[in-house]
Order: sequence, then structure tokens, then C-alpha cells
Amino acid sequence: MQSVEETIISQIKRASRAVAGRHVRVGIGDDTAVLRLPKAAGELLLTTDQIIENTHFKRNKHPARALGHKTLARGLSDIAAMGGAPLGFLLSLCLPEWARDPWLKHYVGGMFQLSKKHNVPCLGGDVARGDRFSADITVVGSVPRGTALTRGKARPGDLVFVSGSLGGSALGLGNLLTTGALRGAARRHLYPEPRLALGAFLRGKLKATAAMDLSDGLSMDLARLARASKVGAEISAAAIPVFRGASLEHALHGGEEYELLFTVRATSRVPPSFEGVRLTCIGRIRKQRGVVLRTERGVESLKPVGFQHFGSEGQ
Amino acid sequence: MQSVEETIISQIKRASRAVAGRHVRVGIGDDTAVLRLPKAAGELLLTTDQIIENTHFKRNKHPARALGHKTLARGLSDIAAMGGAPLGFLLSLCLPEWARDPWLKHYVGGMFQLSKKHNVPCLGGDVARGDRFSADITVVGSVPRGTALTRGKARPGDLVFVSGSLGGSALGLGNLLTTGALRGAARRHLYPEPRLALGAFLRGKLKATAAMDLSDGLSMDLARLARASKVGAEISAAAIPVFRGASLEHALHGGEEYELLFTVRATSRVPPSFEGVRLTCIGRIRKQRGVVLRTERGVESLKPVGFQHFGSEGQ
Repeated sequence: MQSVEETIISQIKRASRAVAGRHVRVGIGDDTAVLRLPKAAGELLLTTDQIIENTHFKRNKHPARALGHKTLARGLSDIAAMGGAPLGFLLSLCLPEWARDPWLKHYVGGMFQLSKKHNVPCLGGDVARGDRFSADITVVGSVPRGTALTRGKARPGDLVFVSGSLGGSALGLGNLLTTGALRGAARRHLYPEPRLALGAFLRGKLKATAAMDLSDGLSMDLARLARASKVGAEISAAAIPVFRGASLEHALHGGEEYELLFTVRATSRVPPSFEGVRLTCIGRIRKQRGVVLRTERGVESLKPVGFQHFGSEGQ
Repeated sequence: MQSVEETIISQIKRASRAVAGRHVRVGIGDDTAVLRLPKAAGELLLTTDQIIENTHFKRNKHPARALGHKTLARGLSDIAAMGGAPLGFLLSLCLPEWARDPWLKHYVGGMFQLSKKHNVPCLGGDVARGDRFSADITVVGSVPRGTALTRGKARPGDLVFVSGSLGGSALGLGNLLTTGALRGAARRHLYPEPRLALGAFLRGKLKATAAMDLSDGLSMDLARLARASKVGAEISAAAIPVFRGASLEHALHGGEEYELLFTVRATSRVPPSFEGVRLTCIGRIRKQRGVVLRTERGVESLKPVGFQHFGSEGQ
């Protein structure tokens, strides 16, 4: 007889079968996965992200399918931010009693729909029981040697860009929690799209100087990019592409956008959009440290306001 | 002002500094880690493991230092089981209020003592708040191309070996829970030693046909190895190296030993010990499926009894 854990692993194995993994020599089921890297693989990218009950989602509000999607999307978004290509992922699940079928089936379904779309196989994982649901995903990817887009190489005079529009995820989370809405802005919150093709374009064609994905809000993440590059930035409130219906506050401080924030030399020719995703210049890197926001009232310091899903704990 | 998460990440960064990582191009602090693999790296190994409050430990019984050690030891043990060398690890932490300093300092201290010992740097991670403590570790390693020790290549006639002695971890957990003892058998439970040098020896010199680490108990793990290899096994109760003071039941079904279970051709010359760790032949692989135990009473089927830390949930 199979244990609950083994039943779940079989379920994930079945879902994985549709995803080709030519470089996977040993997949799910041994002590470790074994990858034979293609010669062109260059350097390896590794990232890990958690989705935790009551911290990142509410069980009675967030659909299982969306959580499965987002678990993988968060990791893929980090690979996109480095300009890399994903090779596979490992999944750790901590499952309370309630997170069994049919919930789990929808969760796994949401994850593997995205896995198939980007052809990223599941390489292995760990399943255990616990009092609260949590998932931790590790994504491994690759990038040509020496070309990974980091946060640390923006230079004074570089232009600051964002992809897509901002604020939709925070607006959508609000709608979801108050009215239970699953469409419109809520879809932006529930089904973020990792910008993998855009990341590769920024690295290969546009030679972006720095990049990161917007997971904790523009104000927080731009401050991190500036700090890592030992520079400052000035952005313009009027230039920020705000999601329809969202406020400037949503766009400045709302998290979980998974759009890309990047910098390019002032001489770079950035197209207005890439594969249907808008690319908007919102400001400029400057030597003077700190991030400032230009509004109708003049220039003010932009405080990095940390994004908290449910605002229950202070910074 | 730093957030709680940022303070913890700084703490881990400081602890990481003592660990050399020549192949690490980008470490903690960007969207992903970037590794430049040495040419000799061959194939990549990837494994992930969780340590969850109330599932794998009790907060009032398990010392923080031991949990930090074990979080990393579990992942390194999987790399050892493949005969590989670890390159680095990623750490995800979900922290409730109680798991702050000084607890967290001891936890991180225990982890980085082991990290330094095996020269395995921390590459990155994720820190979040939550209702229950959990840690998920991903270890990446490498092995020369085509040489990884899997579970699937044991053949009829091969001899079955285990390293060290068995049952100490289960006995120690019992002692810890009842009397709070931290020494003797409890140390086996609290500070398992990943058998990295032995794994490399099994792969490189002994040409073991199959290997795995004993995490869920001999009865369960041998059944898995046999199933993966499409064979069966007969082991002898009298041959099993039982930890002093432990019972045969502890040795057969107790988990978290992190010793290596491996098979070799019958013609292989296995030394009686390797670097002070005993290597004991406990039986033989046979064509007939299933695992049987030979005792004074004859031969009986050995049921794979799953190891549950606190036995609260059925299979």
C-alpha cells in the first residue's frame, strides 16, 4: 500500500511526464536528480522561493490552481530577471490534512500547466505533513558565461525601465480579499506571467546594465537595485505605467507584480513593447544615493515601503 | 531600518563568509545565485529536504544548534548517496515569532559549522514569516559524467552493505523525548554525519552498483532500492550492526540514520571499515521480488514500516 506521500509523488510524476527534459538523466525518485548540462549551458542559476499559508495566501480566498501556478511562476520570474533559461525545478511541499485531493490535484494542475508552457520539468522534491501548508520551489537555470543580469551594474545616467503596468496585483489582492473577485486585477495577482522571453531579450539584445523582478514593490525593489549598484535613482510619478483602476500607491508599493525592472545605457534603443508587453522609461540612475520621486509638487524621497500580504506585522 | 528578514539575511551572509566558494560568481543577495562550474564538474546533482516543526522536531525538545546541523546534513547525505561532491546550498526559512535570536543564532551556527567542515557555501535562499517553523534546503553537487550511484542498478547476486551501525537515531529520539537526554544515542539522532567521503569511495574505488542513504529506515529504504532495481533482497537479522543499546526493531525500522545502504558485485573486496566507519555485509540481492529477513526462526517477509517521528498519523 502506498503512503499518502507516495501517492502525491506518483501524482506529480504523472504530471511531469508531459514535460520533456532531455538533459535529465535521473529525475524524480532517487536521492538526487542528475542533470547532464548542455555544453552551451555556460553558468548555472539557482533560486528558491516559498509560498506559505497565512503569509502569502488565505486558504479560503486563493484558488488552489492559482497557488500552484504562482509557486512555479515566482521561481521562473527570478530566472527571467537574470536573463536566463530555466532547466528544471525541485518542489518541497508541507501538507496539512485539508490540502489533499481535490485541492492538491488543482494545485498540481496549475503548476504543471505553467511547467508545460515553458518546458521546465520537475526534477524532484520532498513531501511531508505539517500543520500549515507551505511550498518551496527551487528553480535551476542557465545563462551564457558572464552575461547574467545582476542588480549591481547600473551606472549614473542609465535609464530606468519597467515592463507591463504596475499596481494590478495589489489592487487584485484587495478585490480578492473583500469581494472574492477572481477576474480583472485579481487575475494579475493570481496568475503572474514570468517574463522569460523578455529577460533573454534584455540580456542578449538590449544589453541591459541591471535587472530584477518586482516581487516586493517598486519602491522597495528599486532601492535594492540602487543599493547593490552603489547609485541612486530619480523616477517620475507621471511616467509610471499604472494598471487600470489601481492607484499610484498600488503601483509604487504593491508587491508580486513579477514585472521586470531594468536599466540600460542612455544610448540604448528600447522598443515601446516586446511581444505585447509594454516597456516604459520611468526615470534615471544618478550618482547621489537614495531613490527620489518627481511629482507635481517637486522631488521627494521615495521610502522603500515593504509589501506585506496581510499587513499584520510591522517592519 | 532593516526589516527582520533583512537582519536574518545579513546574519547568514556573515556566517557564509568563512566558507570559500571559488565557483560562486554571484552569491546571496541577487535574484538568483550564479555558479561557474569547473570543467571537471561533469553532471549536476540536485536535492531538496524539509525540516518542519511538529513533524520532524519538537521545539521544546530539539536544540536549535542540532536542527541547523541536521537541516544541512540531510541534503549533504543525499549528495553522498550519489557519490557526489557538494557545491553549495540554498536555504528557505519560514520563521514564527519564537524562532528569532537567540534561537536563530544557534540554528544558523549549527548549520554553518557543518557548512565550513565540508566547505559548502550558502548560495542564497528565502526568508519569510509564518505560523510554524520550517526549513527547506536545496543542495547542488556534482559527479563525474555517468558515474552517479543510483538506486536502480543492483543485480541478483550483489551483496548488500550498510555503513556504521543502525537503530541509534530511533533510540536517541526516544531518549530525547522521554528524558531530554542530549548525549549517547541522542547525539546520533541530533548530529548525523553525512557520509560524503564514503560515498565518493563507493563510486570511485569500490564501483558500488547501487546506493542510497538511510533516511526512512532500513526496511523501507531497502524495499525502495529493490523496487527501483526490479529485484528483491534477503538480509540476515544476525548480521545487522545494531547500535549499542538499540533493539533490532530500532535498527530495522528506525529512520534518520543517514548511513549509506549500498550493493556491490559479489567479487568486490569491501574493506571492513572506511575512515573509521564500519562497512557490514547484511545480505544479498536476489531475483525474486520483495525483501525477506532471515532470523533463527527461518525466513520471513520484511514489511516496509514507514518511519514517523511522532507516530501521530497512520500510513
